[in-house]
Amino acid sequence: MDKAQQDALKKAAGIEAASLVTNGMVAGLGTGSTVRFLVDELGRRVTDEGLSFTGVTTSRRTQEQAESYGIRIVDIDDVDHIDVTIDGADEVDGNFNGIKGGGAALLWEKIVATNSDRVVWIVDESKVVDTIGRFPLPVEVIPFGAGHVIKRFEDRGYHPVLRKDAAGKEVRTDENNYVVDLHLGRIDKPEELAQDLITTVGVVEHGLFLNMVDKVIVGDPQGPRTLVNPFKKH
Amino acid sequence: MDKAQQDALKKAAGIEAASLVTNGMVAGLGTGSTVRFLVDELGRRVTDEGLSFTGVTTSRRTQEQAESYGIRIVDIDDVDHIDVTIDGADEVDGNFNGIKGGGAALLWEKIVATNSDRVVWIVDESKVVDTIGRFPLPVEVIPFGAGHVIKRFEDRGYHPVLRKDAAGKEVRTDENNYVVDLHLGRIDKPEELAQDLITTVGVVEHGLFLNMVDKVIVGDPQGPRTLVNPFKKH
Repeated sequence: MDKAQQDALKKAAGIEAASLVTNGMVAGLGTGSTVRFLVDELGRRVTDEGLSFTGVTTSRRTQEQAESYGIRIVDIDDVDHIDVTIDGADEVDGNFNGIKGGGAALLWEKIVATNSDRVVWIVDESKVVDTIGRFPLPVEVIPFGAGHVIKRFEDRGYHPVLRKDAAGKEVRTDENNYVVDLHLGRIDKPEELAQDLITTVGVVEHGLFLNMVDKVIVGDPQGPRTLVNPFKKH
Repeated sequence: MDKAQQDALKKAAGIEAASLVTNGMVAGLGTGSTVRFLVDELGRRVTDEGLSFTGVTTSRRTQEQAESYGIRIVDIDDVDHIDVTIDGADEVDGNFNGIKGGGAALLWEKIVATNSDRVVWIVDESKVVDTIGRFPLPVEVIPFGAGHVIKRFEDRGYHPVLRKDAAGKEVRTDENNYVVDLHLGRIDKPEELAQDLITTVGVVEHGLFLNMVDKVIVGDPQGPRTLVNPFKKH
């Protein structure tokens, strides 16, 4: 599948998900290439249909895009809850466990998801996998002592790589932390890995989103299809 | 005990601990009022005795004080290990579980302690308790969504208070995060609490240091006494 075809599937999933946002809602808006199409569609509905809702964003990038359409964006602490959050994902398996953070916004994404009544992911078909882990797992790490954290990950066989930009400089998150990508190949015991990572001193958060999503909308050449998580209450 | 007497005990503990630092070592230097006396004594030994060692500090404050004495301070990632870290503590119990972070430097303190061969705390008698928790437990929290984290802590009965300075502005850590102090009164199950806190999305680190210290030097009117942790290998 070429990029134009993949973009068409992402766009279809984004448009489908936009219909979940209705007047008066507080909606969490994620980050990434599929979410861009979602926000474009929400912006179109604001202009064409007079849709009125409040957004909470998971990155400065999404905030700028949404505000360019006149969507009202507030701080997460200015709302007492979020009705629905729509975000992308880098991988998701049949247990509704996923990896997020390819875009380096995993911390805010997880904070927004945690405070949402419902979480919906929009992905293209290539993100739906049998076992997560082929996509490198991002871990947000405090710069102070990061070398020692990376050493620990190496010792545990996690194949860590400090993420750098094209100029060879460490990528910084919105919180000014580093991102370390773990090249694991496959993650057979995601709960155990999550526990090990979160209790490692110097780790702020990791990109494992375990059983946090209610619904996955998959862009498919036959039209978007929806996977509903049976393990979560709706 | 008045402040002058308490300072005398802290000073005696600091001087006693300074003797653990010898030529050629890499020493972690903590933060707080007792550590100030330690660094004063190390500075004196550098000047009077030609002591030569490398320091890694847990806060900018300690770094400035140490450098004013000509102590060579390096970044934690510039050393492959730390021989001994000497730090204060806000409370410590008979199981060698402690609370740290009254000075808002708990994250760097924990990172330094985690990478040290030996950890020594210097405290005055008032910090040695039967059960930790009377001292409010500091938790370092990401500002984004901090209001929701505080709400969760309230719901769990943790009595959280966002730490503010004298001017009423939120205190920021060296990593630019907030500090939320939990007024628990007593902590009967520190491991359970630690697990709950570290898995709360938005929490970076907490001030529970469970079985991380090898030795506690207690300032006492009869002279400093040393408590050795039997649960840790030395």
